Amino acid sequence: MIDASAKPFRKVALIGCGLLGSSLCLDLRQAQSALQISGYNVPLADAQRAQALGVIDQAYAELAQAVDQADLVILATPVGAMAELMVAMAEHLLPDCIVMDVGSVKGAVVKASERLGSMQSRFVPCHPMAGGHHSGCAHARVGLFSKQCVWLTPTSNTDPRAVERVTQLWRALDAEIRIASAQAHDEICAANSHLPHLLAFAFMNSVAEHPQKDMILQSAGAGFRDFSRIAASSPALWNQIFKNNAHALLKSLHSFRQCLQQLEIAIQSTNEDSALLEAIATSQKCRQAWDHLQLSV
Amino acid sequence: MIDASAKPFRKVALIGCGLLGSSLCLDLRQAQSALQISGYNVPLADAQRAQALGVIDQAYAELAQAVDQADLVILATPVGAMAELMVAMAEHLLPDCIVMDVGSVKGAVVKASERLGSMQSRFVPCHPMAGGHHSGCAHARVGLFSKQCVWLTPTSNTDPRAVERVTQLWRALDAEIRIASAQAHDEICAANSHLPHLLAFAFMNSVAEHPQKDMILQSAGAGFRDFSRIAASSPALWNQIFKNNAHALLKSLHSFRQCLQQLEIAIQSTNEDSALLEAIATSQKCRQAWDHLQLSV
Repeated sequence: MIDASAKPFRKVALIGCGLLGSSLCLDLRQAQSALQISGYNVPLADAQRAQALGVIDQAYAELAQAVDQADLVILATPVGAMAELMVAMAEHLLPDCIVMDVGSVKGAVVKASERLGSMQSRFVPCHPMAGGHHSGCAHARVGLFSKQCVWLTPTSNTDPRAVERVTQLWRALDAEIRIASAQAHDEICAANSHLPHLLAFAFMNSVAEHPQKDMILQSAGAGFRDFSRIAASSPALWNQIFKNNAHALLKSLHSFRQCLQQLEIAIQSTNEDSALLEAIATSQKCRQAWDHLQLSV
Repeated sequence: MIDASAKPFRKVALIGCGLLGSSLCLDLRQAQSALQISGYNVPLADAQRAQALGVIDQAYAELAQAVDQADLVILATPVGAMAELMVAMAEHLLPDCIVMDVGSVKGAVVKASERLGSMQSRFVPCHPMAGGHHSGCAHARVGLFSKQCVWLTPTSNTDPRAVERVTQLWRALDAEIRIASAQAHDEICAANSHLPHLLAFAFMNSVAEHPQKDMILQSAGAGFRDFSRIAASSPALWNQIFKNNAHALLKSLHSFRQCLQQLEIAIQSTNEDSALLEAIATSQKCRQAWDHLQLSV
């Protein structure tokens, strides 16, 4: 439930009617029945689909119309589209409007928010770690953010009152807030989310190219299933995440390559040493530590 | 149910009382109540634990005693221990005894089976693709092999009657049999099981070494969870799988590295080309093809 003491939003504009934005609107709508939600999407058909599903009240083909009179704008497009949208919406925003995003990369989005001009201080960069490999408003659901980690990466220019209201919004959805600099966020997400996606994509491409591809797929088991699940993620989304977080991602990739090479050398070694066993044990221990962390939450 | 027309086994010897062997014995025991099962394990305590759990009837500290009078010996130790065990058991086996294993690597095991001497023709190499990242007889369960793929890799020397009886055994447990050469098996499993494990271990080691390790683990989401699950697998088991399937694994690793490098180049590229998008789309398509394959089974 939205905290009754918090000032409610009157009109929300959802820019980008995909899984995250649509799920967020379903949550907000459930918490506050009188809320008006307008939607904008390229192509428009996806906004119309969101309207048909009850995610938004009205789909607009014009961005200016969608954000008109809104006191909360939710930017939920792929990251690469945000700068242009910010330029286009800036002059149509109410002075007390709050703008937030749900992008997986924060440095590039904070940089893009300069395009909001005087409204930049009202922009609160957010990254809810939720979603999965499905995309589109048809997969949206109430409660997607419950118990999930949501990063906020305000800058020294961000209006603290805007941060406070966005924090209240996420808390009301039972999300777990983490505050960090955009750079720290991008390095951490490169390591625990972007790198696994990159590796899963590369792995699946190596399967796709294999002369025994059919037999490999037909006989694959549970390890394959879980390891490669994220390889089915949206190309449009991940193309932009990789491009916009390239520096931190390639740094994580470098560390991974070193660990992989150590394992390879240990596999090739004909010495009766325990280097391989110990390297795998380090991995097991770290993964089990994560499991225990989950149980203790 | 065991096919009533099939000749039942009278006494089974389980060599290695871990997850796979113990689960197999639970299945056999359920299908045939009069079955006697002896067990051998180094350390002995694990065989005693299996006895306490009802997996085996009697734990033996001597291999010769465990296999005495057995008409089926199940080798379920790590792959690297099998050659020595085969030498040690050979002279104690009944002439009509069948020996099978459940190892994840087949070339090295077929090679090791030469150590059975005249009993080599009664050895049926098996690899049930079941288990997961848990290990030990405490995790054993009835039905572990149901609907799972089980590879049989008999050679031209293998007695067809032994293959037939082992095939019946697995079919009775509702497993899906695949016959292949040991080499073909090892290449396919390198690609769809051993390589993902290697990558998950290397990934988790890179996290373990990261200066922000704690924050990385604390904020990791569902993608991390599934991708890294197999990184918690048994070091003793995977050390031996990697060492015994090094050639095929490093060949798969080579293909993976090429795909990874193509993605890296596409990420670094400042051209407005679609190479990255297309590479991710190839991955998504291949993974979705696997999902459809599962649905159609």
